[in-house]
Amino acid sequence: MASIVERRTIRKYKKDDIPAEKLEALLFQASRAATMGNMQLYSVVVTRSDEMKEKLSPLHFGQPMVKNAPVVLTFCADFNRFTKWCEQRNADAGYDNFLSFLNAASDTLLYVQAFCTLAEEAGLGTCYLGTTLYNPQGIIDLLKLPKLTFPIATIALGYPDEQPEQPDRLPHLAYLHEETYRDYTPNQLDIIYYFKEQLEENLNFVKINNKENLAQVFTDCRYTRKDNEAMSAGLIEALKGQGFL
Amino acid sequence: MASIVERRTIRKYKKDDIPAEKLEALLFQASRAATMGNMQLYSVVVTRSDEMKEKLSPLHFGQPMVKNAPVVLTFCADFNRFTKWCEQRNADAGYDNFLSFLNAASDTLLYVQAFCTLAEEAGLGTCYLGTTLYNPQGIIDLLKLPKLTFPIATIALGYPDEQPEQPDRLPHLAYLHEETYRDYTPNQLDIIYYFKEQLEENLNFVKINNKENLAQVFTDCRYTRKDNEAMSAGLIEALKGQGFL
Repeated sequence: MASIVERRTIRKYKKDDIPAEKLEALLFQASRAATMGNMQLYSVVVTRSDEMKEKLSPLHFGQPMVKNAPVVLTFCADFNRFTKWCEQRNADAGYDNFLSFLNAASDTLLYVQAFCTLAEEAGLGTCYLGTTLYNPQGIIDLLKLPKLTFPIATIALGYPDEQPEQPDRLPHLAYLHEETYRDYTPNQLDIIYYFKEQLEENLNFVKINNKENLAQVFTDCRYTRKDNEAMSAGLIEALKGQGFL
Repeated sequence: MASIVERRTIRKYKKDDIPAEKLEALLFQASRAATMGNMQLYSVVVTRSDEMKEKLSPLHFGQPMVKNAPVVLTFCADFNRFTKWCEQRNADAGYDNFLSFLNAASDTLLYVQAFCTLAEEAGLGTCYLGTTLYNPQGIIDLLKLPKLTFPIATIALGYPDEQPEQPDRLPHLAYLHEETYRDYTPNQLDIIYYFKEQLEENLNFVKINNKENLAQVFTDCRYTRKDNEAMSAGLIEALKGQGFL
């Protein structure tokens, strides 16, 4: 399973297009992932046109992968299709609530990962854009997502034009717990994060950001309380607007 | 990639145990999945003891996989580890909010699917228990999950002792949209769900439940408005209790 074990995020792509049939086949194969009650609570919006990429780009904070990848996929939690089918069958669809949102988001993310594995196995490179959750309303408006759908993840997709180093990962002891969760002692935390903290590139981030340590780079520069709280409020508003709260 | 394309949920397992080293290797390999800012916002609680399976079982509504699988894995969104590390480094960790929950849940679900693919490629069978989100507080209490963690998915894992038929899946046209979401016409919905509605086993579900059609089996028997609304309230309370709302 080299496609998972050897994977790295790809941010530079060749110009080659991805044939529609190839994409459709991968999207169908990925649907073999587990899905709640076999309901397949997701949809995928394919962006190929330059015009749409141009509009999508600022919603992902101008990350260049959006404009440079031949294909951008926005994976959406989708209870709209299932609900419309129920209504057409005179069935009372009670999926306009928070549990149903999380169920559909779960389906979607399992599907995303299955798709990425298959795409990478087929020689494609992927970049997961977590920014989808930062400004969901802009994406909802642009892609015309109806009520009971919600953008969850965006994947930039193309043939790799780079072969970056694999990033570090924590040792499995960092996240593995036997029978119950054993919380972390200060000493364990030092051990778990030691390798990451000593990496040349991370020491450099600390230096250029004029911080005391790597943790402060995360909290003060990359993922700040202020941004997280503002974006949480926007996310909750968007969930209400889409009928899930 | 037979492990995805040929996959089916496995609910019956051989008695054979899964060696700790094998499980650890799979859990580490799966960590190659995309993760936000390389933070790996998840933990896994491994249940092997009969005593814990006995207690976990009712929290999953008595589904027999919990007691019959040699290993049960509860995958948790985890901002506790990262936050504790930040605090130890005098960094202001602002991850006690809803966006951070969804970011950690996303990391977790990508990790779950990567793990399942690798496990299945290694000859294991998996069953995804969506019930994890139905009664999270019971699981939080039993597994002693601290604040800023949350149970997201449970996987029953073991060597397959059955080879069930593959279930149906919707055609890719059901969930694929070009450039913008095109909502469904009544005729399209009839086409999308026709195959599923005509399946012998589904016709039988309609009959034994004394319903007019398959959609009503879903809305009146399997996933009812009443249950969804009650469980949504419990889910939101648990998120508050864990510090994410």
